[in-house]
Order: sequence, then C-alpha cells, then structure tokens
Amino acid sequence: MKKFMNDPETFIEDSLKGFALAHADICDVTLNPSVVTRKSLRREKVGLVSGGGSGHEPMHSGFVGKGMLDAACPGQIFTSPTPDQMMEAARLVDTGAGVLFIVKNYSGDRMNFEMAAEMSENKVAMVVVDDDVAVEDSTHTTGRRGVAGTVIVEKLVGSLAESGANLEACVAFAERITGSIASMGVAFSSCTVPAAGRPTFQLADDEMEFGVGIHGEPGRRREKIAPTDEIVAMLLDSICEELKPSSGSEVLLLVNGLGSTPLSELYLVMNSASKWLNRREVAVARSLVGDYTTALEMAGISLTLCKLDEEMKIHWDAPVHTAALRW
Amino acid sequence: MKKFMNDPETFIEDSLKGFALAHADICDVTLNPSVVTRKSLRREKVGLVSGGGSGHEPMHSGFVGKGMLDAACPGQIFTSPTPDQMMEAARLVDTGAGVLFIVKNYSGDRMNFEMAAEMSENKVAMVVVDDDVAVEDSTHTTGRRGVAGTVIVEKLVGSLAESGANLEACVAFAERITGSIASMGVAFSSCTVPAAGRPTFQLADDEMEFGVGIHGEPGRRREKIAPTDEIVAMLLDSICEELKPSSGSEVLLLVNGLGSTPLSELYLVMNSASKWLNRREVAVARSLVGDYTTALEMAGISLTLCKLDEEMKIHWDAPVHTAALRW
Repeated sequence: MKKFMNDPETFIEDSLKGFALAHADICDVTLNPSVVTRKSLRREKVGLVSGGGSGHEPMHSGFVGKGMLDAACPGQIFTSPTPDQMMEAARLVDTGAGVLFIVKNYSGDRMNFEMAAEMSENKVAMVVVDDDVAVEDSTHTTGRRGVAGTVIVEKLVGSLAESGANLEACVAFAERITGSIASMGVAFSSCTVPAAGRPTFQLADDEMEFGVGIHGEPGRRREKIAPTDEIVAMLLDSICEELKPSSGSEVLLLVNGLGSTPLSELYLVMNSASKWLNRREVAVARSLVGDYTTALEMAGISLTLCKLDEEMKIHWDAPVHTAALRW
Repeated sequence: MKKFMNDPETFIEDSLKGFALAHADICDVTLNPSVVTRKSLRREKVGLVSGGGSGHEPMHSGFVGKGMLDAACPGQIFTSPTPDQMMEAARLVDTGAGVLFIVKNYSGDRMNFEMAAEMSENKVAMVVVDDDVAVEDSTHTTGRRGVAGTVIVEKLVGSLAESGANLEACVAFAERITGSIASMGVAFSSCTVPAAGRPTFQLADDEMEFGVGIHGEPGRRREKIAPTDEIVAMLLDSICEELKPSSGSEVLLLVNGLGSTPLSELYLVMNSASKWLNRREVAVARSLVGDYTTALEMAGISLTLCKLDEEMKIHWDAPVHTAALRW
C-alpha cells in the first residue's frame, strides 16, 4: 500500500489539520468530536449539516462555507461519523432557525443521523439522498445508495437557506431535488482503505465494474472496457430510464471523477455525455466537471443528471464560497 | 491500459471539446490549431500565453481567464505544442500591449516558443520557468525542469497584467518570481501515455521515485517509501537549500497532487509541510492544495515554495476567474 500518511490511526486527524490550515479563511475545524464548521454563521439561517465516512473528499468538508453547508461531520474512512459529532454540529450551527441534516443513504449514516436528530436539543429535520440508480439494495444500504447527486442537493438547498427560507421550505426543496436526480458510476480500478492495506476488490486488466458504489461495493455487473461513448451511453440509458427527461427539457450534468481519473478524461466524458443528451434533445443547461465525490484513489467516473426548473437554476447560479466549490 | 477515450488519435480533441462545453462562460476553444482563449479580452492589456504538452491538466487551459492567462496552447500528451499554435494565440490575444510567453523549461517547448516569438508579427517577450530543483539536466531538458511553480508565475503575473502593467514590467515581475520559487516532487506510481499504452516506468511495491519529473522522468534516486513527515522533510530540505528562506520570512506553499493522490492525503501533506516550516520559523502566509500540475494518473505530489514579498501577496490575493482557480 502506497499512501501519504504517518500512521493509519492518525490519518483522518492529520488530514483534517491540513484542511484547517489550508482553509482557515472559510472553515473552523474542531477535533474530539471532529466537526468542520463555517467560519461566519448567519443569525436565523437554517443550519445545513452533512457528513459521512471520509475517503470521498472534497465531500463533505470541502462544501462548508457561504451558500452551501454550515457544518460537516467526517467519519473514519468509509465509516459513518458518530451521533456525538452530529449533535455537536447541530449545536454549533443552530442560530435560531433549526438544522437540516443532509444524509446519504447508507444504513450506518441513517441510523446515526436519526439517533442524533432524536437526542439533539436543537430543532432538527433530515433529508436522505438516494440518487444511485445502479442497484436497489447494496452492501451497506437498504434501498438505493446516496452518491454524487448529494453535491447538487447541498449546493441548491445551501443557496435557498442563504436566502432566508425556513426549515420546512428547505426540507421541501431538498425532497424535490432528490426526486429530480439520478446517478450511476463505473470503476476501472479498486481503492485501498489505509487500515485494510489492500484493494477492496479486484478487476482484470480489461474489465470495469458497471454501477460501482463509492466504497467499491459491487454494481450491476462486470463488463469488458468499451470506448467511452459506449460507456456513457450505458450510464445515461440507466439514468434516463429513471428520470425520463422530456425532449426539450433542461438538465444539470455532473461528470464526477472517483479519484484517479485524469481531468482530461473527465472532459472527454463531458463531451460524450453532451453529445448523447443532445441527440435526445435534452439541453445541458448547467454542468460541473471534476472530482467532487471520490472513492479514495479509485479510477472511474459517475454521471449525475438533475432535471432543472427555474428555481433550481437560480440557486445553482447563486454565489458559493467553499474550499471545493466557488463562484 | 484503462482510459476513458474513444480513440488515442482523437483523445486531445475530444477532451478539448468537453472543456469548451464545460467552461463556455470563461473560454473559447479553437481547433486546428488548438488554442484556448479567454472569452473577453481587455484592450491594451499585455496578453499572457502559456502552453505545453497535455497530460498536466488543469495546467494550462484551466488557468485561462480573468486575472490569469489570456491563452493556452495544448500540445499532444507530453509533447510540445507547435509554433503555429503559439503564433495564433499571440495573434488572438494581442490587444495592443504585446504578448508574454510563459514557458516551462523543456527543450521542445523552448525551441517552439522561441521560433513562434521570432516568426510572430506581434510584439512578443518570453520568460522561462525552471523551478524543479531535483536535477540539473533531465530527459527532455537542458537545465532545470519547469513544474508546478509555473502556476504561481501565471497567477501573479496574470494579476499584474490585469492591473495595466506594460510588457517590460510583466517580464521583470515574472523573472523576479521565477527567482523566488523552487519545487520538488515524489512519485509512488508511474503514468501511462495513451498512445504508448503501457506505464512509462516501473516502481516496486515499496519504492518511490524521489525528485520525479512531471512526465515520469527519473529524479534523484529511488527510495523506500517512508512516513510522510520524512518524505516532506526530504523535499523541503532540498527546496530550502535552494531558496534559503530566512527565519521570520513568509512563503506561499503549494501542495500539488500529480494525479491520483487523494485530496485527504494532500491535506495530510499540507499539515506535515506546515509543521516543518513552522519549526524553521518560516511562515506559510498563503497556500494552495490540490491537483494543479498533474502527470496523467501518476500517484505522487510535489511541493513548491515561493518566497513572498508584499507585491506578490497583493497579486496572489487579487481576484481570478478561470476553470481551475477562482477567488
């Protein structure tokens, strides 16, 4: 195993310390329990909190800041954060308008966020993101997994909360967005969890895992590697079977790198996906290309589509100032 | 070889088309010859042009936009762009104040940029960046290689040019910056050029290439992998031997990922490097952490230090609006 680390035991803490140093203008980081909070909180704004296992960077700590999250709770690698982290986050960012937990659909995360919501002294609501259309149930999940579509939920609801909407409006918007999103990924390689020391799974030199999860969970099937236009068509077929975007409609397209896929290849995927959608007369009205929801150093990509309405476009375009997303 | 591509022959063109779609608000992309230009040029501003082989994304196309480059010329993977690309770039962005070529020190790039400067009908000056202290001469280089420090040159001179400085002032500033920068990298893995189809070099499971180049060129020596604090100390020792930052001085620290190193590890490196510099009483006054000068999917990092003065800090902090750098 080749990792930049000093000791697997201190990996997350050492990494969070570096994050804190690099983004001291945007975030505060507390340890024990680990919580990343937005530097300047706004009074009477709904506090948005997310979190999950580490290893998906920049998700979620990289999305803390103006116009997006107020706090993130990083767990150990691929392991849910604990309820005490979530309760502390809620306590820190509740400025009088309540708190919304944005949770990716994994059994451990749901259980812990639900427990924290119940035990918290703050007013807490919760929304679950389950955008991955690859499989219904999976290694760590009952129902569909939550993956890169979560970035879109956090950005859009972050903007709505910034505009002063109340907790009920944020919940309703988040649920509308989760109903408008679908994602699917493909892996060319596995990843290695530091504490495990060996790859999570094995792929032959000419194979890809079609529908892979962001922890290396199995997808729908193994396939021979194909030209990118074909891979993209298979992913978008599955996504559009779910979303059924009508001819003439507008979507947001997220081309997400899973870790070690070069940016030049992500842009190539962007081109393939745009061509495919154009042929279906679906307009790519907004897009985002880069590593936003990773699986350590996995080679692969995921595609996410979000069916856009006017309100979503306004909130997508609204300013955001976080470590990983800024405009 | 596992790559997202349709055909090695069209790889760069397909990727540039995707880049153009993703960043249509910031850049225009022309093909034949391939040039990425800033969407809105300013009259009487010095035009900044860079370029080099592809495979280092987001460098340089990702740095085209307000406050940084006016044009980038992407070559084939790890291959210099051609003089006709550079002449076309100069023609497109010369709005009356002349053009500055910012060139990484590789023999092919220098030869082609020099030829373009001579043949161009525009007023062209040139500055060469050679920040890599690992080796004196190398596979593709006479003298030191130009690596991630180039990002800093492009950002700082980009801001100065934006402020209305003339060509001579931009050249002088660029030369002062190149004299204040030093970099060095380490690789845990090789990378694979699409047209070659196999890894550029081989490393054993417990080895790293210390002082690696951004095309996989050999560095100073092979070493056994060590804890990150030790790797960082070796890199910073070499860098500071060159730069000799005085106690109490301020530096900009760039922690650059070479491709497939997870962001969590880059932040861990940031923490190690900050601790090391603090012990030497060198203040990390500015920092940047991420994949900015890559070598396809190489696992590894480079560290760059830039000794800062007040003018450099002002130009680092100035607004920038490009695909890859935005504040």
